[in-house]
Amino acid sequence: MSSSARTSSPPDRRKNVAVVGSASPNAEVLVLAAQVGALIRRLGCNLVCGGMAGVMAAACRGFQEAKEGLPPGPVAVGILPGEDPAQANPWVDAAVATGMGFARNALVVRSADAVVAVGGGSGTLSEIAFAWQANRPIIALVPGGGWSQILAGDKLDDRRNDRILAAQTPEEVESLLRQALGLPPAAR
Amino acid sequence: MSSSARTSSPPDRRKNVAVVGSASPNAEVLVLAAQVGALIRRLGCNLVCGGMAGVMAAACRGFQEAKEGLPPGPVAVGILPGEDPAQANPWVDAAVATGMGFARNALVVRSADAVVAVGGGSGTLSEIAFAWQANRPIIALVPGGGWSQILAGDKLDDRRNDRILAAQTPEEVESLLRQALGLPPAAR
Amino acid sequence: MSSSARTSSPPDRRKNVAVVGSASPNAEVLVLAAQVGALIRRLGCNLVCGGMAGVMAAACRGFQEAKEGLPPGPVAVGILPGEDPAQANPWVDAAVATGMGFARNALVVRSADAVVAVGGGSGTLSEIAFAWQANRPIIALVPGGGWSQILAGDKLDDRRNDRILAAQTPEEVESLLRQALGLPPAAR
Amino acid sequence: MSSSARTSSPPDRRKNVAVVGSASPNAEVLVLAAQVGALIRRLGCNLVCGGMAGVMAAACRGFQEAKEGLPPGPVAVGILPGEDPAQANPWVDAAVATGMGFARNALVVRSADAVVAVGGGSGTLSEIAFAWQANRPIIALVPGGGWSQILAGDKLDDRRNDRILAAQTPEEVESLLRQALGLPPAAR
Repeated sequence: MSSSARTSSPPDRRKNVAVVGSASPNAEVLVLAAQVGALIRRLGCNLVCGGMAGVMAAACRGFQEAKEGLPPGPVAVGILPGEDPAQANPWVDAAVATGMGFARNALVVRSADAVVAVGGGSGTLSEIAFAWQANRPIIALVPGGGWSQILAGDKLDDRRNDRILAAQTPEEVESLLRQALGLPPAAR
Repeated sequence: MSSSARTSSPPDRRKNVAVVGSASPNAEVLVLAAQVGALIRRLGCNLVCGGMAGVMAAACRGFQEAKEGLPPGPVAVGILPGEDPAQANPWVDAAVATGMGFARNALVVRSADAVVAVGGGSGTLSEIAFAWQANRPIIALVPGGGWSQILAGDKLDDRRNDRILAAQTPEEVESLLRQALGLPPAAR
Repeated sequence: MSSSARTSSPPDRRKNVAVVGSASPNAEVLVLAAQVGALIRRLGCNLVCGGMAGVMAAACRGFQEAKEGLPPGPVAVGILPGEDPAQANPWVDAAVATGMGFARNALVVRSADAVVAVGGGSGTLSEIAFAWQANRPIIALVPGGGWSQILAGDKLDDRRNDRILAAQTPEEVESLLRQALGLPPAAR
Repeated sequence: MSSSARTSSPPDRRKNVAVVGSASPNAEVLVLAAQVGALIRRLGCNLVCGGMAGVMAAACRGFQEAKEGLPPGPVAVGILPGEDPAQANPWVDAAVATGMGFARNALVVRSADAVVAVGGGSGTLSEIAFAWQANRPIIALVPGGGWSQILAGDKLDDRRNDRILAAQTPEEVESLLRQALGLPPAAR
C-alpha cells in the first residue's frame, strides 16, 4: 500500500479472504487449510480468520510460508473470541480482540470479500450461515468433509440466486476466488 | 513475522498500539495524529484504529509514509463501524468490518497493548473509558485539546493505581510507549 | 417476582425460552409459531426472540394472547438487529436494540435456557448453530419445514452427546421444554 | 400491553429508561438508585440496566417494590456482560446475556429512550459517552457524585445542541423524564 507523493489517488483496496473451519480438525484438513492460506497469499489478498488453532492456524502458517519472494503487503488478520490479543496463533500479523466469544464469527464473515470453508463443525456452520446472509461469495472445499462438504453446491434459502460453490482442490479454490474477486485468471 | 524453517519457535507477537481521536478534528490535531502514526511504525508496532476519517486516517497515513527504509511487517488495522470493509480509509492495510456501530470502540481498545488519545469528542471519551476498564496503558497527547487534554494526568476511578499519562509532544508519546510496551529506550 | 420483606432469598429466576424462525414464513409456520408462543406463556417462562416480523411476531402475539387469566410476570423480549427500540413488533414487552445486525442472533441464543426452532432459512440456521455451540437445549418443530425440519434429530458435530430434539406438534414442544427446563410434567 | 380482540391497532410502545451507575457504589448512591427505579415503575416505563450489582440491582429492586397497586406491564431488563442469564440480579424480570463484556454498555444505551446516570466510575462514563453519541436524552443525578456529578449540565462535544441534564433530586429526575419522553406532567 504505497503512498507515493506522485499520485493523489490511493491504491485499490486489498481484498480480504476469510478462511473458516474447525479449531480441531484432522491432519488432511490441516494440509488443505495450509494450501488455501498459501494461495490467498499468492493472490495478493489479506487472510482473515478467527485467529485461533486448527484450520485457522494452518491457514495463517501456509499464508506466511508462501510469502518468500513475493512483494510485501498482504497480511493475516485474526479476529479473536477473547479479550487478549496475545491469544492469537503465532502466524497472525494483526490480532483483533473482540471479547465477544463465538459472536465474533459474524465479524470474520463481514470483513471478507469472499469466504473459503474447509471442513468444520457447528462454528463453521454458523459462519457459512452468516456469510450467506451477508451476501458474501462462499467456496466450500469438498474433500475436507464436515459442513463444508455437506453444503457444497447448495443454497441455504431463497434470498440468493447463487449457490455455495463446490471446490474439489485448492487449485479450484484459487480459480473460483479469482472469479469472485474480479482478479485476472492465473498465468499459465 | 518470519517463518524461517531453521527454528520451531514462533517470533514474538508484534504489539498493537491503538490511536483514538475525532473523525473531524482541526488541522493541528491531524498533524499530531500523523506524527503518532509514524512513530508507531518506527517502533515496529501495528497501528489499530477505527479505520475511518480524521485522526484515524491521519494516523494511518503517517504510519504508511514512515515505512520507507524500514523492514516490512507492521500493519495498520481499521476496525470499522459498518458492515463493508470498503469503508476503510485508504491507508488501512487490513479492514475489519464489525457492523456494530460505535460499539466497535470497545474492540479497538481491547485489541491494543497501549492506547494513544489525540484530541477527541464523545467517541474518543468512550474509548478512553473502555481502555481504563480494560486495564490498557493510556497516553493522552495534551496539545491536541479535546477529551485527551481534559483527562491527561487523571484517574477515571479507583480501580487502577496508575493514571492517564500526559504527553506534551509526539517524542514523549514514543518514550511513554517504549516504557508501556517494554521496548528498549531510543538509541541516541 | 415478589420482593417480600418476609424472606431474604430472592425468587427463582424465571427461565427464558427463545423462539427462532424466519422473518417471512408461510401461513402454516405462523400458526405454529403462535402456538409455541402461547405455550411458553402458559409454562410461566419469558419469551426471547429477535423482535421483528414473521415467526418472531407470531410467537410474541401468541404469547400475549395466552396471558388471559394467568398471573402476571412472564415477558416477551425482542433482541433487535437495529439501533432503535421502536423497530420491535408490537407484541414485544421489552425491546433491546443491539445495533449489531444479524450478529444479534448470538445474543438471542445466549439469553435462552432452551431454544425452539420453527421453519427457518439461513438466519435460523445461524441461531441453531450458535445454540449448539452455547450448549443450549434445542427443540425443532418438524412440520414447519425449513432448517428446523432438516436438522431435527441430528447432531451438528461431536462436541455434544445429545441431539437437536424433534417435535411433531406444539404439545411435544411443551413436553420437551418441561424436561429441558426441569419443570414439572403437565397436569392431566 | 393489551391484546384485546376488539381493536386491531397495537398499543403504544412502552418506553425504556436506562439506569447507569457503578457496580460498587456507596450507601447514599444505592438509596438514590432505588428511588430512581421506583419512579420509573410509577411512570409506567420499562427499566433497562446492566443487570448486575450495585446501582443496577438497587434500581431493579426499587422498581419491583414500587409495583404494589399499579397495573402490570412494565418490566426490568438486565443486559448482562456474561454468557449466562443466571448472572442477573434477582430483581431483573428479563435477562439478556450478551457475552460481550463491557461492550454491552453500548446496548444498554441504545435500548433506552432516555438515560439516568447515578454516581459512577469509568463504566458509567462509557455509557454516558455512548448515550451522547446515540442522541439519547441524559439525566445526571448530582448528589450521587462520580461522573454523573462531574458531567451534569455539560456538553461532551459539539454534535448536540442540548446538554446533560442536571437533577438535584429523584423528583427532578421524574420531571425531566416526563419532558424527555413526552409523558404528561405529574398530577398534583
